[in-house]
Amino acid sequence: MERLTEEQIVKAVEKAEGWKRDGKWIQRRYKFKEFMDGVHFVNRIAELSEEANHHPFISIDYRVVTLKLTSWHAGGLTDLDFELTAKYNEIYETL
Amino acid sequence: MERLTEEQIVKAVEKAEGWKRDGKWIQRRYKFKEFMDGVHFVNRIAELSEEANHHPFISIDYRVVTLKLTSWHAGGLTDLDFELTAKYNEIYETL
Repeated sequence: MERLTEEQIVKAVEKAEGWKRDGKWIQRRYKFKEFMDGVHFVNRIAELSEEANHHPFISIDYRVVTLKLTSWHAGGLTDLDFELTAKYNEIYETL
Repeated sequence: MERLTEEQIVKAVEKAEGWKRDGKWIQRRYKFKEFMDGVHFVNRIAELSEEANHHPFISIDYRVVTLKLTSWHAGGLTDLDFELTAKYNEIYETL
């Protein structure tokens, strides 16, 4: 999958609710009522990452889970990263 | 639980295999063969954290899980932090 152009990235970030650009990365902080809710979310994200063979950087800071995505093989952001932001948001909404 | 003295911290870090001091924090990087092995480890750590009501900062960077500990209420490191490093190491050894 090819790296997106600057223009494509700007448009894609606009559509990715809650996600912010950080150079070659995009990231979002997800907040939870309880620590274990965040842990359950991470488990869902992990399963999806294995299926997609694309693994975000994940951090758990008590009740806040941060996900960061980039495509190493492409040296930047690709369509796959933005497909995953949409899926991650969907999982968050259904929890 | 009271904050440990500098001398106590130095001794405790020496005994905590794989753990390094970083100011008010201690941290260790745990490596795994597979991404999901790291995720299972995080689940075990999360359960223990809930039981102890003491939550480390957790990050998952593909097959590397990093744990960071401090005691906010004490403004630094306490005995509890070092009790947990021993338990985390034990969980890692049994996986």
